[in-house]
Parts: sequence; C-alpha cells; structure tokens
Amino acid sequence: MNAHTSSTTSEKPTVAFAMGDPAGISPELAAKLLAAEEFRAGANLVVFGDLRILQQGAKVAGVDVDVEVVASENEVPEGSARPVFVDLKNLSPDQVTPATATLEGGLFATENFRRALLLAQSGRADAVFFTPFNKKAMRLAYDGYDDEIRFVRDVLKTSVAASEFNVLGKTWNARVTSHIPLSQVSAAISGPSILRSLTLADQCMRAAGFNPPRIAVAGLNPHAGDGGNFGTEEIDVIEPAVMQAKEKGFTVEGPFPSDTVFLRAKNGDFDAVLTMYHDQGQIAMKLMGFDRGVTMIGGFPFPICTPAHGTAYEIAGRGIANLGASREALLLAIRMGTEVRARRSEAQSEPRLSAVNS
Amino acid sequence: MNAHTSSTTSEKPTVAFAMGDPAGISPELAAKLLAAEEFRAGANLVVFGDLRILQQGAKVAGVDVDVEVVASENEVPEGSARPVFVDLKNLSPDQVTPATATLEGGLFATENFRRALLLAQSGRADAVFFTPFNKKAMRLAYDGYDDEIRFVRDVLKTSVAASEFNVLGKTWNARVTSHIPLSQVSAAISGPSILRSLTLADQCMRAAGFNPPRIAVAGLNPHAGDGGNFGTEEIDVIEPAVMQAKEKGFTVEGPFPSDTVFLRAKNGDFDAVLTMYHDQGQIAMKLMGFDRGVTMIGGFPFPICTPAHGTAYEIAGRGIANLGASREALLLAIRMGTEVRARRSEAQSEPRLSAVNS
Repeated sequence: MNAHTSSTTSEKPTVAFAMGDPAGISPELAAKLLAAEEFRAGANLVVFGDLRILQQGAKVAGVDVDVEVVASENEVPEGSARPVFVDLKNLSPDQVTPATATLEGGLFATENFRRALLLAQSGRADAVFFTPFNKKAMRLAYDGYDDEIRFVRDVLKTSVAASEFNVLGKTWNARVTSHIPLSQVSAAISGPSILRSLTLADQCMRAAGFNPPRIAVAGLNPHAGDGGNFGTEEIDVIEPAVMQAKEKGFTVEGPFPSDTVFLRAKNGDFDAVLTMYHDQGQIAMKLMGFDRGVTMIGGFPFPICTPAHGTAYEIAGRGIANLGASREALLLAIRMGTEVRARRSEAQSEPRLSAVNS
Repeated sequence: MNAHTSSTTSEKPTVAFAMGDPAGISPELAAKLLAAEEFRAGANLVVFGDLRILQQGAKVAGVDVDVEVVASENEVPEGSARPVFVDLKNLSPDQVTPATATLEGGLFATENFRRALLLAQSGRADAVFFTPFNKKAMRLAYDGYDDEIRFVRDVLKTSVAASEFNVLGKTWNARVTSHIPLSQVSAAISGPSILRSLTLADQCMRAAGFNPPRIAVAGLNPHAGDGGNFGTEEIDVIEPAVMQAKEKGFTVEGPFPSDTVFLRAKNGDFDAVLTMYHDQGQIAMKLMGFDRGVTMIGGFPFPICTPAHGTAYEIAGRGIANLGASREALLLAIRMGTEVRARRSEAQSEPRLSAVNS
C-alpha cells in the first residue's frame, strides 16, 4: 500500500473481472455490470478482455460503458473513479462466431481468467469475478480443463484444498465429494473429509457475512440410513464428525435425510447444507432455481465468483439476458473481497508482531 | 360376477378403502372423501374400519357421511348407491390417543389394510386405497413393518416384483433401487433390473391413462458420468438398457444428468423419470411439492394408492387437513381400477380361448 492511496479508496475492495466466453451472453452481461452505478461506487473493478468485445456487448445491452482503458495491469491507476479496463486486444470481433464454442473464444476467456487470478494472487485484487465460460471452448483452449478449480490450481501453482459452493438467495450448498463416480462416494467420506469441508464452508460463509453460519449436514443413505437399516455411514462416520465439529464450535446439525433437508434450508432453518455427493445438492439447488444463483469457489486466498448459469448461446446478441445472477455473483465477490482486504490490511499493519492473535 | 349385477354397476370399479392411523388426520380425510359426490358416483367404495372412528372424523371435518353399514365383506351388496362401510368394530374412540403412535392404532390400520388387500385379491375389488398410516404405529402392530410392499407381500403370500411410484400432478417417479445403502446402488443396477423397472413403470402408467408414457432415465453419476470421466455405469449398463428398451417399443430416453432431468419432466418433456436410487428421485419430488402427491404401489394384481403425506399429528382434530392429495390418490385408484376391471372382465369372457391375444 503506498502513501498516496486514500483511505476511502483502500477500504473498497478491488475485484479482478474476467470477460468470459465471447459467443454467448457474457459480453452483454459484462457491459451491463460495468454500467451499473452500484458497482462503480462499491468496488474498484479491474476488467480483463478486449475493448471491442466489451463495446459490442454494450451495443447489444443498450448501455453506455464508461471505463478507464489501460494497456496492462501494471498501469492500473490507484483510486480511479471508473472501472479500469485492461485492454488485452486478445480478440477481434470478426473472430467471434456467435453461439459457437471455438478455440478463439476459449483462448480469450482462459487468458482473461488467468490474468485476473494472477492480479489477485499478487495482492492487487481481493476477489475474482467472471462472466460465463463455455466448457467446450475452455477445453479446446486448455487441455484437461475439467473444471475451474483444476485450472485455478494450475495458474496459482497450488494444490490447496478448494471447493465449489452454490449460493441461491440465502441458501448455500457445500459438498464433501464432487466429480467422482457415485460408487466411490462412500469410501471418500470420512471424519477428516467432512471436517475439512465444514471448516471451509464455515470460513467462506463468515467471509460472506454469516456469523456464524448454521450448517445442516446431509446423510448419505435413504432416510439417512433409517437407524442403520439402509446403510451405516451415518452412524459410523457422519454423526461422529458432526459431534466433533460441534465440539470445535461450529454451528452444525445432522445428519438429516437428504430428501427433506433442503426444504428445511429453504424455510430458513439453516443457512447451508453440506451434501455428501454432487447430485444430492445439485438436484435440489437446480430445482430451487439455481440458474438464478451464484457459484463461488472457496479455499484459495481470495474468492472466485460467477453466475451459475451458462453462456446461453440460444439468446446471445438479443439483449434480453437477465442480469440477476451476475449481479448477485459480483455483489458476493465484493462482500467477500472486503473481508479479504481487511485481513490483508491487518496482516500488513502488524508485520513485526509475534504469532499471538490480536 | 353374478346374474343380478347390472352392467352399469359392473363398469364402475370397486375400490377397497382402508382407514389409516386413527390418531392423526386420517379419520377426517376418510369422512371428507366418503362425503364427496364425485367418489360416490364414480366408483363402488368398500370401506374397512370402525364406524365410530369414521363418525368422529366426520364431526371434525364438518361433513355428513351417508354409508351403507355391513358387518363383514361377505355382506357387501351389489350395486349399492352409497359407499359400503364394513364395520369391523375394531377400535373404540376411547382407545384413541390423539397425535400419538400407539399399538392400538397400528392394529386398527393393519387390520383394515389387510382386509382391503384380501378383498382385492379375491377379485371383489379392483384397487386398494388407504388414508395415511403412521410407520411407528405399524411397526408396533406388525413386527418388521419396513414398508408397505413388504406387508402386502406377506398378506398376499407373494414375492412378485413390486415397486413404489411417486406421482405429482402429471409427473411420475419410478426407481430401480430403493431402500438399500447408497454404496450398493452401483452393483444393484443392471440391464435386467433397469428393464424390469421400465416395464413395470410402462404397465402401471398405461393403466393410469398414459398411452404411451414418455419415460426419461436418469444417469447414476455426476453429469451422467460426463462421457466416462466421472463413472462408467452410464456407458456400460444404462445406455445399453435404454437402447434395448427402445427396441422393445418403450418410449424411453436417456440416461440424462439427474440434476436437470426433473426440470425437463416438470416442463412437460417427459411423463416419468426412472431414477437409479431413492434420493435421486425423492430430493426432486419433495422439493416439487410431493407432499401434495400420491404414492402408488405397482406390481401386484391391483394398484394400491395413498396420499404421499403422513398422518400430520400436529393438525389432527382441527378440521383443517387438506384433501388434495387424498383426492388425487383415490382418483388414481379409480382410474387404474377401471383398467384392472376391464382386464379381468376380458379374461372372464374368454375362459376357453387359447393364449392367443385378442
């Protein structure tokens, strides 16, 4: 932090904003977000992409986008009143094939995402946000692009434990296991893996403003095992882990039958449901309208947020894309980025102190 | 069928109606159903229970119930214009503890259910309906009352393949596996088990008026295996079974990712989803409002229908129980019973023909 940074500016988090796939609704979503006063006032935004693609998006969205254009992230001015656009000149509009997943589109999105991640890793941004990617295009551009977590690990050169969270309104969903065969789920859930997931969920949700988050843990088997009649993981593994988590001070309950726990969360009994496997949460969240929700990747030194929906090729270029989920995702990035900024600022102001907690 | 049966009467199906748990909302639901003109006109109802409990229910519900009371199922008159009530005198009102699962309540409900099942087995009823049971009370009365299917098998002395179907509005859910540990699901799904479930679903749904039913098959793994990246059961087992089912003439598609297939069914793309395991369907159906739905047990020579919700002890005796699900369940029993009646009638009229299909 240098001397001429105003304290007002330094309290606002900086969000590194990556433009996503150019062939769908991402450009118009980016333009709408950058034109919205709430974001111009609430955060410092540093956007990575190509100015021509943004301008195309602005035309489709019918908005004026007033950004400060710079040529690289090293030229980002401190305390700009406008979003700063790092114009990578990495995609010409005539290279965009509308509504099509292409190598060019994938290269554009992966490069924007990489630069945003590295800005945050360097401490010059407190959170990362991106408009939707197209997985097929990402795979064309980056061999082995299984999901965002794998890509982020590669870029940040880390193998830290990270997880995807799904956020819909006030309800969060975290998972103990994710992209593995269902037949391997039972072996993958253990006391340590459940506690790790609970700890990460608790940390991320506190950063998002839950104090403390009330977390429900789902069972694995039908009727949460029905007292051992339909499986014993609840008795052998999940219940002891929940007990241990309670002793550690987490606000956690369970295991609950997975076919009713989301109804209870929806009714406000819990802030989050920790599910044992991918579809246990995804079936519920998608039916509850998760397309309007937010995907948050937690576990890295900064949060990464994006709308849960995809590139919506079928409505690209028509200016009718709904901004709701993107707005929620950027708001979450700002909220969580504020906490990252405060934490970093605290760490910087006490560089010579011992490890004793303040 | 004897000579004095009028043809009008014989076209209407007979539904054997078992009064359920006496301590919750079952008595008032029974009274409301028996008072409704649509059921008095649309079917011959033979009700098993205690008249005093029914009268209590009628008082709570605020309805007048006009039934023809007989002492046993052997005294049921042909062509009665009113529902026939077989008064088993098996529970005195002073034995009922409101909102409590008791042995007495369980004995009452199991006896009513048993008599209804035996009436249908004897060919004197075409479908069975019951108002909600309380599982705890059933277990007190009948050792090893795991679920209705087990009990029905015991009563009918059969080991025929049967399955529970969940019906919500126009959407059906059938399962390949049900009350088994999640870790055993992969081993339990096979070509034959999937085809057996599809065949049963197709038969039951045709009997309910779908011609043909359009059935979606869910995958097992996240993203239906993502082309083999997250599990291979889709490729090795489910896809071949779906292909084989198509060749046999079923209107079936899949496997589809289980976290979006119910959204498609909800939108009307399919009439049913065949899920691989219990919670895959139950998470979705319960979120979609399955408490307002119907549970149908198929596979026995006659359908067995009941509302999906429970005994609702918390609102018992207040006369506010919603009749919707019970009404749907009884309507489904009548619709499917009509088909059973037609099938039986056909079989009777061609007793000497060879096995060649008519």
